[in-house]
This record gives sequence, C-alpha cells and structure tokens, in this order.
Amino acid sequence: MAEWLRRASRKAGQAPGTLIHVGERHEEEVKVSLMDYDADRLEERVLADPAEGSPYRDRDTVTWINVDGLHRVEVIKALGDQYGLHPLALEDVLNTFQRPKVEDYADHLFIVIRMLSYDSVQNDIVDEQVSLVVGPNYVLSFQEREGDVFEGVRERIRGGKGRIRRMGSDYLAYALLDAVVDEYFPILESLGERTEALEQELISEPTSDTLREIYNLKRDLIGLRKSVWPLREVTNRLERGESALIQPETIIFLRDVYDHTIQVIDSVEVHRELVSGMLDTYLSSLSNKMNEVMKVLTIIATIFIPLSFVAGLYGMNFVIMPELQLPWGYPLALGIMAAVAITMLAYFRRRRWL
Amino acid sequence: MAEWLRRASRKAGQAPGTLIHVGERHEEEVKVSLMDYDADRLEERVLADPAEGSPYRDRDTVTWINVDGLHRVEVIKALGDQYGLHPLALEDVLNTFQRPKVEDYADHLFIVIRMLSYDSVQNDIVDEQVSLVVGPNYVLSFQEREGDVFEGVRERIRGGKGRIRRMGSDYLAYALLDAVVDEYFPILESLGERTEALEQELISEPTSDTLREIYNLKRDLIGLRKSVWPLREVTNRLERGESALIQPETIIFLRDVYDHTIQVIDSVEVHRELVSGMLDTYLSSLSNKMNEVMKVLTIIATIFIPLSFVAGLYGMNFVIMPELQLPWGYPLALGIMAAVAITMLAYFRRRRWL
Amino acid sequence: MAEWLRRASRKAGQAPGTLIHVGERHEEEVKVSLMDYDADRLEERVLADPAEGSPYRDRDTVTWINVDGLHRVEVIKALGDQYGLHPLALEDVLNTFQRPKVEDYADHLFIVIRMLSYDSVQNDIVDEQVSLVVGPNYVLSFQEREGDVFEGVRERIRGGKGRIRRMGSDYLAYALLDAVVDEYFPILESLGERTEALEQELISEPTSDTLREIYNLKRDLIGLRKSVWPLREVTNRLERGESALIQPETIIFLRDVYDHTIQVIDSVEVHRELVSGMLDTYLSSLSNKMNEVMKVLTIIATIFIPLSFVAGLYGMNFVIMPELQLPWGYPLALGIMAAVAITMLAYFRRRRWL
Amino acid sequence: MAEWLRRASRKAGQAPGTLIHVGERHEEEVKVSLMDYDADRLEERVLADPAEGSPYRDRDTVTWINVDGLHRVEVIKALGDQYGLHPLALEDVLNTFQRPKVEDYADHLFIVIRMLSYDSVQNDIVDEQVSLVVGPNYVLSFQEREGDVFEGVRERIRGGKGRIRRMGSDYLAYALLDAVVDEYFPILESLGERTEALEQELISEPTSDTLREIYNLKRDLIGLRKSVWPLREVTNRLERGESALIQPETIIFLRDVYDHTIQVIDSVEVHRELVSGMLDTYLSSLSNKMNEVMKVLTIIATIFIPLSFVAGLYGMNFVIMPELQLPWGYPLALGIMAAVAITMLAYFRRRRWL
Amino acid sequence: MAEWLRRASRKAGQAPGTLIHVGERHEEEVKVSLMDYDADRLEERVLADPAEGSPYRDRDTVTWINVDGLHRVEVIKALGDQYGLHPLALEDVLNTFQRPKVEDYADHLFIVIRMLSYDSVQNDIVDEQVSLVVGPNYVLSFQEREGDVFEGVRERIRGGKGRIRRMGSDYLAYALLDAVVDEYFPILESLGERTEALEQELISEPTSDTLREIYNLKRDLIGLRKSVWPLREVTNRLERGESALIQPETIIFLRDVYDHTIQVIDSVEVHRELVSGMLDTYLSSLSNKMNEVMKVLTIIATIFIPLSFVAGLYGMNFVIMPELQLPWGYPLALGIMAAVAITMLAYFRRRRWL
Repeated sequence: MAEWLRRASRKAGQAPGTLIHVGERHEEEVKVSLMDYDADRLEERVLADPAEGSPYRDRDTVTWINVDGLHRVEVIKALGDQYGLHPLALEDVLNTFQRPKVEDYADHLFIVIRMLSYDSVQNDIVDEQVSLVVGPNYVLSFQEREGDVFEGVRERIRGGKGRIRRMGSDYLAYALLDAVVDEYFPILESLGERTEALEQELISEPTSDTLREIYNLKRDLIGLRKSVWPLREVTNRLERGESALIQPETIIFLRDVYDHTIQVIDSVEVHRELVSGMLDTYLSSLSNKMNEVMKVLTIIATIFIPLSFVAGLYGMNFVIMPELQLPWGYPLALGIMAAVAITMLAYFRRRRWL
Repeated sequence: MAEWLRRASRKAGQAPGTLIHVGERHEEEVKVSLMDYDADRLEERVLADPAEGSPYRDRDTVTWINVDGLHRVEVIKALGDQYGLHPLALEDVLNTFQRPKVEDYADHLFIVIRMLSYDSVQNDIVDEQVSLVVGPNYVLSFQEREGDVFEGVRERIRGGKGRIRRMGSDYLAYALLDAVVDEYFPILESLGERTEALEQELISEPTSDTLREIYNLKRDLIGLRKSVWPLREVTNRLERGESALIQPETIIFLRDVYDHTIQVIDSVEVHRELVSGMLDTYLSSLSNKMNEVMKVLTIIATIFIPLSFVAGLYGMNFVIMPELQLPWGYPLALGIMAAVAITMLAYFRRRRWL
Repeated sequence: MAEWLRRASRKAGQAPGTLIHVGERHEEEVKVSLMDYDADRLEERVLADPAEGSPYRDRDTVTWINVDGLHRVEVIKALGDQYGLHPLALEDVLNTFQRPKVEDYADHLFIVIRMLSYDSVQNDIVDEQVSLVVGPNYVLSFQEREGDVFEGVRERIRGGKGRIRRMGSDYLAYALLDAVVDEYFPILESLGERTEALEQELISEPTSDTLREIYNLKRDLIGLRKSVWPLREVTNRLERGESALIQPETIIFLRDVYDHTIQVIDSVEVHRELVSGMLDTYLSSLSNKMNEVMKVLTIIATIFIPLSFVAGLYGMNFVIMPELQLPWGYPLALGIMAAVAITMLAYFRRRRWL
Repeated sequence: MAEWLRRASRKAGQAPGTLIHVGERHEEEVKVSLMDYDADRLEERVLADPAEGSPYRDRDTVTWINVDGLHRVEVIKALGDQYGLHPLALEDVLNTFQRPKVEDYADHLFIVIRMLSYDSVQNDIVDEQVSLVVGPNYVLSFQEREGDVFEGVRERIRGGKGRIRRMGSDYLAYALLDAVVDEYFPILESLGERTEALEQELISEPTSDTLREIYNLKRDLIGLRKSVWPLREVTNRLERGESALIQPETIIFLRDVYDHTIQVIDSVEVHRELVSGMLDTYLSSLSNKMNEVMKVLTIIATIFIPLSFVAGLYGMNFVIMPELQLPWGYPLALGIMAAVAITMLAYFRRRRWL
Repeated sequence: MAEWLRRASRKAGQAPGTLIHVGERHEEEVKVSLMDYDADRLEERVLADPAEGSPYRDRDTVTWINVDGLHRVEVIKALGDQYGLHPLALEDVLNTFQRPKVEDYADHLFIVIRMLSYDSVQNDIVDEQVSLVVGPNYVLSFQEREGDVFEGVRERIRGGKGRIRRMGSDYLAYALLDAVVDEYFPILESLGERTEALEQELISEPTSDTLREIYNLKRDLIGLRKSVWPLREVTNRLERGESALIQPETIIFLRDVYDHTIQVIDSVEVHRELVSGMLDTYLSSLSNKMNEVMKVLTIIATIFIPLSFVAGLYGMNFVIMPELQLPWGYPLALGIMAAVAITMLAYFRRRRWL
C-alpha cells in the first residue's frame, strides 16, 4: 500500500479545472450503469453513451448513475455538463489522490471518500477513490474500477427491502456511504489479527522479519488513518444537516454512519498505540536475548580462562619447577582447578545468572 | 481482554435496522424482570413474555424492565415495539460492540455504556454492554448476561432507602449509571497493584515475563480507556440537562457521576503515563545488568589472557630459550604474572569497575 | 507518595449522600475551632460541640470554623445541617480522594483543594484534602488532620495586619487558597534540587539507584500534576467572578492566586520535560560506559589472542619442527609477537580506541 | 537546507520600518517586469525604472508587476510609495526570513509565502520568499531571485487560456498561490522516494550513513513543515472571503488551493510519522545485527575454550600424570573433546542459536 | 541558566502585597533615570529621589522613568504610590520570577516580560525581568540591573529619528517590547550554531561530553520556551487593542512584535524538535560504534581460538600421539590452521563483516 505515499504527485502548471486523469490506469472498459426507481418501479440499464441518461434527469424518480473507470475523460465531462458540475469538482473526480471531503454547491453536494477493501489474495489493502454527487433526485457515483462494495445496496433496491425504495436520493447517498464504512470493519479485523500475531512473535521470537512486519503494519495504519480521519469530518458535516438536500429523516441514519466512523477511528487509534510501543518492546526483547547470550559466554569464559591459565602454568618448560616433581603435583593442580570452577559457579549462582 | 480488539467485526451489507445479535453468545436463558414502584408501593416480577409488561406502560409509577441476555432477538423486538424504539437504537442494543453514547429521541433517551467488572477467578477484566432506554416513567435496561452491578440499586428500591422511591425514572437511570461507574474503582485499584508490583520487578529483576506483563497492563489500560473516555461525554451531556426528561433535582446527582468519571479518567491517564515509561525503564534495567555481566567477563578475561600468554611463552619448545635454564626463571615468571594481575586490578579499581 | 495511586478505592453500592469517611484514619481527636471577627473585634475559641457555633451564624461578622480530622462523621453532619450543605458535598468532604473542584450551590461555594507539604523528616510529599465552604459571612474548612499551612492567615487575623479584618468571607477564602498554593513552591524547589542532583549523577555515575530515583521523581511529578491541573480550573473559575459571593475587590487577589497556580504548572511541566528525557540519557550514559568496557576487553583480547597462538604454535610437540632448532628461533618468535602487538596497537590508535 | 535554521538572524536595534535587505545576496541584476491585461488586450514589458509603471495604476486593466531580486532597496521603496504600501509591509518584503502570513490593509492585501523548488542538480530543496501585494486592479510580486514557478501562469495570460484574462487581480493572486503550492508536490514525491529508499536500507543494511540520511530527511521535513503550516492559515483566511478584495467567484478556487495545502500537510505529517520511528528501527536493526555477531562469538568461544582447556591439561609437564602413559590416552582425550563439542552444539541448537 | 529552575522559590506566609525583593541581589546602586519628551523637546535626567519625577506626571509630554535595580524597596514603593499602582503589581515588580503577563488596571497597563541577552564571555544566556507600567502619558520600566537592550530606543528618542517623538506612551511601550523581542534573535542564532555543531559531533564522534551538551541545550531551550510562550499571549492581547490606552495607529506595530514573537516560537520549536531526537541519535551512533568494536573482537577471537586449540592439541604430552612422529605432521598442522583461518575469513566476508 506504499502507493498512497506517492499520491502527492500531481499535474503541475495546468490551468485549474483542466481535466486530466491522475491515478493508476486500470485497463478495463469504462462502464456507466443506471438505476432509476421510486417506491413502485425500478429501471436498471447500462448506458453506452452518457447522453442516454439525460431523460431521467427531470423525472421525479431517484436516478443513480454509477461510473466504473475514470480514464475516458470525455465520459466524465459529458456527465458533468449534463448535471452542471463545477469544473473543479470534475477535476477532483479525475484526480484520484484526494482526501475525503464534502463540498456544498447549493444544488448538489460533492462528496469524495476512499473505499478500502481487503484483497485476501495479495494480502493487501486496496484503496480506491469514490466520488459522489448528490442532487435533489439523483446520485452520481464515480469509481476507479469495477468491483465495489455497493452490491448490497443494489440488492436492496432491487428487492425493495427496507426503506430505500421509499426514500430519496439523500438516503441512497447514505446507503452508499454506509456500505463503504462497513467495509472498513473486516480490514480492522485483519489488522487486529496481524497485531496479535506480532505481539506473540515479539516477545518470544524476535527476528528481522518481525521488524519488517512492524513497519508494514505501521504503514498500513498510517494509510488507513489518512483515509478515516477526514471521513469523520465528512460524515459529521452531513449529519449536522446543514444542507437542504438532506431530509430530516435521513439525518438519524447519517448519525449512525458517523458513529461507525468514530468506532473505526477508535480502533485505528488503539492499533496505532499498540504498534507504536512495539519497536521498544522489540528492542527490549532483543536485549533480553542478548543478555542471555552474554551470560552463557561469560560463564563459560570466566570458568575456563583461569583453569586454562593453571594448565598453561604447569605446561611451562622451566628446568626448575618444583611442583612438577611432586608425586601429588598433578592431583593438586586438578584440585585447584576444581576449586576455582566451583567458586565461580557459586558466584554465578549468587548473582542469579544460573 | 484482547476480545475488544476484535470488536471491530460487524455484519456488513445488511440494511440498516436489521436486527441480528452481534456478540458473544451466552448460553443462559434470556430473562426479563420488572420492578414497578412509587413512594408507596413496589411490584417485582419476572416476565415470561414481554407483552406482560404493557399494562405498566401507562401507569404513573416508575417501571424498570431489565433484560439479561440478548440472543433472543424477538424478545428485544417486542419490547422495542411496545416502547416505540427506533430500529437503529434496537440495532445498537443487539450489536454489543458499541462505544458509550447517549442519543436523544425526544420522548426517550437511549444510553449505551460499558459495564466492567473484575473477575478475580480468571484474573481478568470482564466487559459487557449495557443499554438504557430512559422514558418519562420507565427505564429499560439490556445486558448481555445475568449478573450485574445493579443489586445495590434493587436493594435500595426494595428497602425504600434514600431518595430513589420518591424520585422519577431519571433518578433511577442515574442510580444505574452510578452503580456502573462505581464498579470501575476496584478495577483501577487492581491495576494500581499490578503497576506497583511491576515497578518493583522492573528495576530489581527484569525478565521476559516482566515484558509480557507490561504489555498486558498496557492493553488493559487501552481497553479501559476506550470505555471511559466516551463515558465522559455521555455523563457530561446528561449533566448539562439538555433533555427535558432529566429533572433539575437529578442534575446535581448526574454531576456527581460526571465527577467520578473524571476521577476514573485521571487515574487511567496516570497509570498510562507510568506504564508508558516502563519499557524504557526495562531496557535501562537490562542494560544495567548486561553492563555488570560484561564487566565480570572483561575483568576475568583481561587479567588472565596476558597471564596465559606468559605461561604459553615459556611453554614453547625452542631448543635455545635461556630463561628456562635460569634457576630463578620460574619464580621470575610467577612474579611477572603477579605484577600484571595487580596492575590490571589497580586499573579496574581506578575505573571503578570493582 | 504512592498512596495517591490507590486513591481510586471507594465505597461502592451505597446510596449517594451516605456519609462514610473514606481515607486514612488519623488517630488524633477531631478538633473544631472557630474564629469570628470584623474590623473591630475578634473572638477565637475551640468548640466542644458544633452546636456551640450556631449563634455565630446570623451575625454580621465573618465566622471561620475549621475542622481538623474527619473520622467523627456526626460532627461533620451536624455542621453540614447547621449550614444547609448538600449531602453530596458532605460526602465529598468525607471522601478524601477528591480531585480539586469548585461547585456553586447558590447560597454557598463548595471548594475542594489538595494541601501539599514537604515532610523533610520522611523526605516525602504529604498530601491532604482541604474542603472549603464559603458562604456570605462564613467559611468552613475541613482538613484530614491537625497541622496546616493556615497559621500565617490566623496570625494576620489576630494581628489585624493587611486587609483581612476589613474584608469579607470571600477574602478569607482567598487567603486560605493563597496559603495552600504558596506552599507548593518549596515543594517545587525540593523537586528542582532532586532533578539537578539526578542530572549530575546521570551522566557521570549511572547506577540502578539512579534509575529508581528517576522513577520516584517521575511519580512525585505525576502526583503533583494531578493536584495542580484541576486547581487551575478552580482558581480560574473563582477569578472569573461568576459567583455573587465573590466581591469585585477580591477578584484581583484571586487572579493573583491563579497566576501563581499557572507558575506552579509551568514549573511542573518543565520538570516533567526534564525528567522524561532522563531515562534516555540514562540509557545513553550506560551505553557509553559499556562501550568503554567493550573497548578494553577488545583491545586486550585482540592483542594477546594472536600472541598466545604463536606461543602455542611453538609449544607443539612435533618431532620435526625446524624453527625450534634454530639458534635465533626464540628471539624471532618474540620479534613476531612484538610486531603483531605493535600492529594491533597502531590499528586501535587509528580507530581512536586508545 | 540548514540555512532556514539561521533565519532567526535579524537587524536589531533599528527603528521599525527601516528598509534594509536581510537575506542572501543574489548577484543578478534586479529585474522589474510588468504584465497589463484584460480580456481583450495584453501588454508585457520590462521596466527600467519603477516609475514607468505608474500610468498603469489607474487603468481598469489588471496590472501585474513582478520584481526579481531585492537587494536594490530603492526600487522596492519606489514601488511601495507608488502603491501606498505600509513601511512595515515593505520591511517584511525585504526581510526574507518571514513566515507565511496574510495581512489586510483595507485597500490591499499583503501576502507572504515561501516558494520551494527542488534543485535536482544540488539534490536540495531551494527555499525563497515571495511577497504578494493584491490591490483592486493590481498584483505586485516580489521574489528573491530570477527563475520561478510562475511561467505557467504567464503562459495562460499570454495564451488567453482558461478564465485568467476574464477575471480580476484576485484571480491572478490565486493563480500565483496555486502555482507555488503545486510545486510542493514534486518535492513531496522526492521526499517519498528518499523515505522508501531509507526504509529498505534501514532493516537490511544499517550504516552510519543511514543515520546521517535519517537526520537530513528529518531536517528537510521540519523545514518543509515550517513553510506549510502557516501557509494553511494564509489560504484558509483568504478562502473565508473576509476581504472585500476577493470576489465571490474566486473563493471556490481559493478553497481548492486550501485543499491542496491540507493535502501537502497531510503528506508532510505522514512522512514525519514514518521518519520519527526510523531511529528506533535503526537501533533495533543494529541490535539485531549485534546479536548475530555476539552469537557467533559465543558459539565459537564456548565450544573451543573448554576444548583448549583439555588440551592445556594434557600439555602440563608433571612428572607423574598417569593418563599420559596410557596407550589409549590420546584417543580418549580426543573423544572427550568431541563429546564436549557435541554437547555444546546440542545446547545451542536447543536455544535456537543455530 | 539553571537558575530559572529555582525560580519557584517564593516568600511564603506573607500577606499579599507585602513588598519584599525576591531575586538575585545585584550589588550596584539603584538608578532612576527619566526621559521626558514630545515632538519638540526632550529632557533627560537621573533622579536622586523618585519624588523629583512627580512634576512630570501631569504634563502632556511622554515621561519615561526607568529603574535599574530593585533591592531598594522604598524607591519602588515611592514610585508606585506616585503613579497609583496596585500593591499586587508592585509585588510582581519586586518578585523577579514572574512569567510574562499583561494586566489591565483601567488607568494603566502592567506588563511583565523577560529580557534575555547572550553573555558571550560566560557563554551563557542571561535572563532578567522587565516590568512596564504604561499610562496615558508615561511609561515606567523596572529592571533588575543596569545594562539593557533599550539603548537603541534612547538613541531614537534623542535623535528624533522615526515616529517615536511624534507618538505617545503606547508607542514607547511598543518600542521597548520590540527591543526586547529583537534581542531574542541573536540568542536563537547562537543556539542554532550549537545545534549544528552538536549534530556533526553526534554522528561522527559521540562522547559523554556530547551527552552533556545535548542536555545543556535542552535546558536552555526549555528555559527560552518558558519565557517566550507567555510572551506570545502578552503581545497578542496588546495587539488585539482591547485597552483604551493603545492607540489604533500603534496596533499595527504591536502586530509586528507579535509576528516576531511567533517567529521566535517557531524557531524554538524547531530547535526543540531537532534536540529531542538527538538522544536517540546519540544512542544509535554509540550502538553503531559498539557494533564495530564487537565485530573486531569477534573476528580476531573466532579466527584464533580454533587455531590455538589445534596448537594446544599437539602440545599435549601423551606418550603415544602418532601425528607427532609423522615427518609431515608439523606442515599438516599448519595447513589445517590455514584452512580454518581462511574458512572463517570467507564466512565473515559473506556476512559482510569485513
């Protein structure tokens, strides 16, 4: 997920509002799909040309146009013109390194959020920008590529389950936000598991892989945090109901999303706190191990070095060394050695090294 | 208490307000009990069916319905319908990984708090969600399992001690909150004892168990903190008396609970500060010990290595080595060795290693 | 001063307002003393029974009733009833583990502060709770034991020095607060001396006692901080003059106390900052020393190990070893050894280890 | 980029408003260039004397006077007098160590920002002060030296691309701000690359160069931060539209600059967080390596030291040493050595050192 | 500069407003000098007795009375009475351990600031309290000793340069504040140089002196910070122009002082951030060096220890050791040793220790 560090990159020196796609180029075709519904009927189709969507604009029904893929700038531009979007908003749709935000353009709200999902194959967090434009009777959603977390919402629209068919575009926007935020929880869970595994490893078996994994975990948390904190401001601003586009009955649902965002932030902060102490624990654990190693070395060396000295002493070749002639010289030397060794061991035991 | 890290997990992709119990499944039967009282009379019973509680709804007396166990969703739903609870509130009751909060639904307050208790058998902190619904003349309380900290409140109602029988449902809610917060103090005390024991161990006898215990203490504090900080907001919002359901004479009591919450937070923060420095102390203490080990090794090695060299020197087998023939060669060699050893010892003493 | 960590402990499950003394039991008798004065006259007596104080209640003079010792609950209760104190306030007087606070009960202010004094015999900070009740013409003060910092105030009342006899109960309350805050300065000074002594020791002579002293200093600072920060809120709230009980001419004096509190906080924070870096300095200093030890070991070992090898080489007993027969074999061996030693020394000098 | 640390330096003891150039002296000539445009026409010239610019002052067209080089104080002063600038503002233009700020002098805005650019030759961040004076129909810009990031803006004015020719001086000021902020992104990108390279090196191959590079990165981030944080206040104040000089239609563009500033700050903070943990990682990585070294030493030493002792033992020259006479004495000694060595190896394997 | 730590000390138990000089006793005579000026005339004299100043009080001219030395309390008191100062303000003048503050006594402002200057002889920061009393047509300034940073202001008054003679007492107060703040910049510069020198030393040549210098730098920064942060509040409050004594045209100058204060704070914070990481860098650098030492030891020891063992082996005196009899036994032994040494060296090279 190191890619978000490079997110800084940006077309420089262009006039503001110049539409250039900045981001990863995903190879698939750009796909524009439409759902148009009210409590009684539902129409669902794929648009070959954005212009096919224009008749839906002025109907009373809720129209949801979803765009997968951003690299065909003309499609985005056509939709933008159709719904009267500000050039700077379109620029933000295309520049996929935005931080989450909400902007109120009187006749529509422009919302940018980050959709995270856990790619269990790559064992990695996949990060994608989702831009929402919420008007009185329409929602436009722009995604970087196909495959999203909105399938549950579509099912609910199709099945007519819950309130969604009876309520307006603001509730649809809420449902999309909610789907994105809900997807953060499994990610947190996987982070939780990694944290726990690391903690085990840290104290019992610290290696340089542990160090690397601490580092990766830290980066993932920093990345997650960068997505979630501004999201809090977004949901908070929506929930305060300042925009006339948000119906009072939707606010309580937005508050629920806000609560979930706070819960995500809480969890991220808890993980950060746990991870932030890990390097110190790692160092402590290593020092502990080094201490063990040193003790072994010290015990062996300090026992045998004096013994070897005694042996060396009587290995000298002086012509006159009286002890060498003594019949009990050899046993005496062994006895001295034993005494030295025992003294040392007693000393170590007293210092609790053994 | 690592479970709260996994608390992130959540049913995803469901319509909001879908009632599914998310949490640990406790095997006991769901138990619904009712206390109905005013200054003069008290009725206490166990309800086989929530419907039995409906006659009490419209009486002037204070009705307290307590539910132990959340896994029978239909019971919760029946009660919710009876008292007109919002589906999102019911969802929060069932999803037991909420952070403490209070929500004002005009005709009732919805309060979520975390009831902690110290399980001295498991030597662990037990964490349970308690949801309160406070209406003009009733309090509903939902707990995850039987066994709670409300026994003192029940006794006071039964005995008619203090103000409780003379006051309304808001005072009952206060009494329940107060009972929950009071239970935090013994937990803090047990944490205090662990902290003190650790501090002793840290400096005198650091082992890898110490490291593990520091880590556990830190986690417990993070968990406690996660419950207590939002509780502060809850009690603060109640104490400000914004809701019409809170009588002025109850506010001073709620302020008292707020004060206690602040005291708990103060203590948690003090503990965190103490624990946060422990890893550094641990490392320092280990380094101190390693220094001792190294000194012993160095002293022994640097004394004997030169001596052994001298011994080795005169163990060489050169045909012509004049010293070997000298009558005083051996004593001279011993003398040199003694001189080297004494010099070394003097050096170490001067450096204060001895 | 570890006692404040245990301060968490509290009677649980009691009805609010139940009066039980929670705190250290001091063996002395409870002593109730009274001073009643105006600009012209002064009466001073010890009350055997709180009831003896009631005639003073309705006089225009300022009445100061001071209670030393809290373990006779009935005395406190009698005074409380006489002056119409709220049960929760009385509970706070008796529960001596409160954090500083001020509460405005319309007809009186209830103030809790912590009186610290330095016990130079025990070399310890003594911490005591002082509760003040400030009414229109009276001040009640409750202390845990005899012996306080108010003697200067009494002298000023007796001597009629300064403004105190000419002003009201609010000025008396100010004078008591001021006396308590003034006493913090000598404590800070003693902490400052300990900090300086530690700093000297840290770099020149780090031992495990240094570690212990760092830890103690840190705890004392945390404890001090826990008393001082809420005191700031207390003095700030008083100084803002929101209560009708505080005369405008007293406010400037309360601002002075507030300034002193800020000064205390500043000093505590400076000390904390200094102490917080000490563990790292300690570790650095230790590492420095270990480095010295390692260098000595390395120098000795790397010089003599090769020499010993050469000696060992010519101590081998092979029948055919031509060097051993050479007349200049022994001097040659010595020469090689000298060369090796000199090379090594040169290497060490180049690396600046010598 | 250590120069910004020295930025503290300042002419002291001068009367306020005394005009002295404080900063690096750049040798090039001071160059004053002018662009005067409206939707229909564009005039572009270099002014030999600032007085040549005065006729443009009262025209309706937008006049942009750009000054490269600040060391000819009289030029600055002449312009200042012409446009009625406050002496303190002129002082700030000349003292090139200002922090970014905006000041509202009713008839003009005075803006100071820092223009950073990445000098890929010197591999260094170049930091320059840009002062803008924004009046109703003019913009003055002052730079320390020639060469800037405004070329794109000039091209857009010349080409008549986008809105710039149709809008007023406030939009021109926006365009200049935007150009400066846009230039921060490539700098962030280069920092990102350095961070990533360091991270690789940190864990696999820590050297003292790594340490130095961590330090440099840290300094660059501190310097960047010092420029960016106050810039946020600047753009935020402009975007709030408090000044009558900012047209409503420009505000949305200023909000865009504000968003970019926030994005830059986000990235700087992420980098700081990553870098702040690097020293700990470095230390951990080093300790890991030292542990490896120690293990090798310990294994070799603890295996051979006992073996050497046995060899030394039977190298002693006692007259009576029965083992020496035994026919199987030598193989026995070898066997004992082998047994010791194998035991040691087994021990190490059990401790997982091998 | 450790003295500021002791600043806590304070006369305790005195009635508020009791005038006692608390601070260092400077031996010089107390000197009271007066400047009285308007746009046209200037009178300058030294007052033998404060009473000589009273005629100037009611003139329209600006009167600046400066007192050097505070140990003659009666002089301060006489001035205080003459200008109607509050006893608490006089107490603050005399108690020279105040934190910077501003207090508004309706008819005059009382300002306390800290004047720092760099004593290049002692290589130390000298810290002195300056109290200003600003009335409608007078400024009183109190300093601890002679010698100050106001000489530039006096010169401007004498020379009639700039605005000073034309403006009122508020501008004079501004000029004094500005002179004090300007003096902070050279101090910052000297700190910057020390920081840079330390950084060089840190990585290349860490010694225990480095550690001591880091510590000193940290203390100096903490001390500086303690003076500067409250100064920010002071200048900010003045600049907001709440006092009627500050003329609107002076406010823009005060804003300039405020900006400089912010710049000083920025620099202090940058230095603190740099210094705060230094201990970690120091430790890392030391570990790096220790690693080098350990590698040398390990290489030498692990090469020669096995060699010495082989030598010892063939130094054994067993009667039957077949190798010893072999004609090529000695060369074979040498060969084995060479092989072992080469293997070891190859191993070290592979691990990149060489």
